[in-house]
Amino acid sequence: MGPRWKGKGSKAKAAAEPMSEIISTLKSSLITSNSKGIISGCSVLLEATLEQSTALNRACFGRVIVTSEKDRQWYEFGLEEAFYLSYTLKCLEIVDHDSNVKTDAELWHYMCSKIKTFPEFFKAYSHLRVKNWVVRPGSQYGVDFVAYRHHPALVHSEYAVLVVSDKDGNSRERLRLWSDLHCTIRLCGGVAKTLLVLHVLGKGSETDSPTSLDEYEVIEQTISRWIPEQNREQNATTKTRDFPTTS
Amino acid sequence: MGPRWKGKGSKAKAAAEPMSEIISTLKSSLITSNSKGIISGCSVLLEATLEQSTALNRACFGRVIVTSEKDRQWYEFGLEEAFYLSYTLKCLEIVDHDSNVKTDAELWHYMCSKIKTFPEFFKAYSHLRVKNWVVRPGSQYGVDFVAYRHHPALVHSEYAVLVVSDKDGNSRERLRLWSDLHCTIRLCGGVAKTLLVLHVLGKGSETDSPTSLDEYEVIEQTISRWIPEQNREQNATTKTRDFPTTS
Repeated sequence: MGPRWKGKGSKAKAAAEPMSEIISTLKSSLITSNSKGIISGCSVLLEATLEQSTALNRACFGRVIVTSEKDRQWYEFGLEEAFYLSYTLKCLEIVDHDSNVKTDAELWHYMCSKIKTFPEFFKAYSHLRVKNWVVRPGSQYGVDFVAYRHHPALVHSEYAVLVVSDKDGNSRERLRLWSDLHCTIRLCGGVAKTLLVLHVLGKGSETDSPTSLDEYEVIEQTISRWIPEQNREQNATTKTRDFPTTS
Repeated sequence: MGPRWKGKGSKAKAAAEPMSEIISTLKSSLITSNSKGIISGCSVLLEATLEQSTALNRACFGRVIVTSEKDRQWYEFGLEEAFYLSYTLKCLEIVDHDSNVKTDAELWHYMCSKIKTFPEFFKAYSHLRVKNWVVRPGSQYGVDFVAYRHHPALVHSEYAVLVVSDKDGNSRERLRLWSDLHCTIRLCGGVAKTLLVLHVLGKGSETDSPTSLDEYEVIEQTISRWIPEQNREQNATTKTRDFPTTS
């Protein structure tokens, strides 16, 4: 299944503005303005200027929160997004409610305390983001993330992403039962996405610091239905349901 | 969501021939002919006469196996179906390959040895069958069973059924993660079924004999999305997306 572009010209538009350049622009914009996000529970908030707002929208980070202030926009980032902007792109400082800037280690510790699976989820998120995929939450489709080839305004999401880890005793994860696998694949087929399972494998070392991220390995696996009729030798020309005849 | 009948007249047809009567007819037919099913791995096979075949089709038990014998029909039953016919309806004897008739206790032991979750699955299956629901495998939709109000030729399946038990350490079951729940509900919505979760709760006693089935309790739970717009006071008349105004 290839990308499903939204309307004519979208493909060309995406090619003319690669996501890598859009991310670079965002990075410069946030660094120049010395942006500071405020950590709050399981999200990070940023009051954005018009320029920042445009850059965030184009790179598809965060979501706008509706406030009563008409001329200012507040953005809310999920923890993976915020940590990616802060730790990976180094373009966003994150402060607590007392305006103290948090170090990488402090942030890491905070996020791991909020979400037990943060190391694996962030590894998966950044694994796709560094390859210039746009990564958004997947709860609408019952998966962890959805991945877009470019901005969601131009293209439909291509992959439904599930994060699976090998943590000891982590039996509460997805796809361990056939019924779950069937359910997930059937849904992915129905919404024209490919199921991408990211196995995030740790090396058994401690996870006290974000440098431990380098020790994770990510194994990618796409899962799809095998349809006999579509996988025959003569498929390209015939699409028949009869047995193929020998000539 | 109510039943979705297939075409005009189906509802009347179903009302004229209640499933309870169809099951009674099947029962008589199988008892009269002293039917014997042959156990084979995870299924039970029955060579059916034309009359039996009609009765099985109408009651929706088993599936026809294609064989080279044109004038004879072989039926294959899943273990729940076979045990229901044998133990609950008492209309099918089941024999092994040496033609020895198996007792209820022997059958129970055999089936539990083949499928670890057989007690819970059979309890769920029979819970619906005794209420005259037609119960078929649900793997196509990533669930354990689907339930029809009447024969699948007359009506679409109404419930997608998941069996959940409280067995110690049974962490490999469905719906423990939000993503799984979202996935399942989204799929059920897409195929116009209601998710029915049957919690089969044991009383902690041994399961060496089928009489232990009486000690299980079944708690039914349907799960569906809550859509604010459809749950407002004024819903029945307005279906508006605006805030309701006070009059």
